[in-house]
Amino acid sequence: MASDDQERSQCCFLEWMNHQQEELLELHQVLALHAHHHHNNNINNGNDLIQLVEKCIKHFQDYADKRSRLAQNDVSAFFAPTWCTNWENSLLWIAGCRPSQYIRLIYALSGLEIEAQLKEFLQGTSTGKLGDLCSKQLHQLDSLHSKTIRAEEKLTTQLASLQEDVADQPIAMIAKGLFHVGEINREVDKALDQHDKAMVGVLEEADRLRLSILKELIGILTPVQAVEFLAAGKKLHLCVHEWGKRRDLSHGRGSFNKIY
Amino acid sequence: MASDDQERSQCCFLEWMNHQQEELLELHQVLALHAHHHHNNNINNGNDLIQLVEKCIKHFQDYADKRSRLAQNDVSAFFAPTWCTNWENSLLWIAGCRPSQYIRLIYALSGLEIEAQLKEFLQGTSTGKLGDLCSKQLHQLDSLHSKTIRAEEKLTTQLASLQEDVADQPIAMIAKGLFHVGEINREVDKALDQHDKAMVGVLEEADRLRLSILKELIGILTPVQAVEFLAAGKKLHLCVHEWGKRRDLSHGRGSFNKIY
Repeated sequence: MASDDQERSQCCFLEWMNHQQEELLELHQVLALHAHHHHNNNINNGNDLIQLVEKCIKHFQDYADKRSRLAQNDVSAFFAPTWCTNWENSLLWIAGCRPSQYIRLIYALSGLEIEAQLKEFLQGTSTGKLGDLCSKQLHQLDSLHSKTIRAEEKLTTQLASLQEDVADQPIAMIAKGLFHVGEINREVDKALDQHDKAMVGVLEEADRLRLSILKELIGILTPVQAVEFLAAGKKLHLCVHEWGKRRDLSHGRGSFNKIY
Repeated sequence: MASDDQERSQCCFLEWMNHQQEELLELHQVLALHAHHHHNNNINNGNDLIQLVEKCIKHFQDYADKRSRLAQNDVSAFFAPTWCTNWENSLLWIAGCRPSQYIRLIYALSGLEIEAQLKEFLQGTSTGKLGDLCSKQLHQLDSLHSKTIRAEEKLTTQLASLQEDVADQPIAMIAKGLFHVGEINREVDKALDQHDKAMVGVLEEADRLRLSILKELIGILTPVQAVEFLAAGKKLHLCVHEWGKRRDLSHGRGSFNKIY
């Protein structure tokens, strides 16, 4: 039923956010266990870390598959979701985060990008295993960063052409005076349906890019670094959602309805 | 009062849409009058056309000024407005339309881009004065088109860096474990305020670009072509809003509330 599209997409997101919370807990637990073993010189081959990382990626893949199915019916809902805050939506890139943000987060976590005024603030804080990136890893990260930015630019351009196309035929027929404002027309509906289909394609490609960059990134990191990175990413995602709520509320958007 | 931000921004948009409707009527009236004079071989120096075009541009400037003032308090509301439909929001480029769409619309109106299957459909329809673009005008339009796309790309890149910056310091401090999810922190708030300020800058620059491309475009057209173009643009904008409502409704978003 078409009227359920919105609710189903919203449920999909809320489930995903709950997953984030659960996985964050699991990631912290396995990190603590690992540190404990390490401290006691026990043998830990890191299999638990690797399994957890794989599980997280599997969940991400499942989420992308679900979004792809839901987007077939109602793709525009994903480009400025009503279930996200305005503040989050202003940060969106093709219905999600920029994959280059993953790499920026690694840089920040590794302490490479810490500004002078924050050095003092951070004193005494462990930067974890991500502080120990070796030069080979840094080199690999740099080249993954450039590659990611190029791939993002390509998709951004693809989206731009799609947005420009809306001003073309047969929509221009309306402007030409063949139709009146608000009039329903089969030709227009067909054109808009085709446009939606192309938007689904861009969304799917963006999700594929996010997933593949995430996998490559994890391939560069050691298992414990990968777990630290995933934990930080999930925490950041949850924080951004919370900050957005607070910032939206401060602008009077607590229970504001969408108007139509 | 902060809680009025959302309502004020929404009013600003609704007023603007009403203006569009009124101006569309005026544009059509002046076009009809002009055709009538032309038909009766009366002298009409086109001053009425020029004045109306200038009035439309003045209104656009006023609207941009108003948005700029409102955005100081709540910029994210403009990037995925709750007062627009999801479908419209999926087409947004920096809180508005792409200026390159103006030029694509001219191309479509001039009949240059009409697809074969539509030729028959359009037979007997006057393409108006925009069908008579001379080669000098076409050349000027082409170079304005390239210039516009380059300017858009520059701003898109600027927005991309801003979005990536969110993953940097001091936000990464949260991920590092210095704060908990949902915790309020002065440092974070300060960083987010700075981010918002930068977003206002990008919004203002995008509005400036839209306005300046519009002015340049009108400078290329004759007065009667400019009036035809503005009328078509306003009609397209109103249509897109209406289509968005219909398409959102068909996905069950008639009276769906934003959830927080």
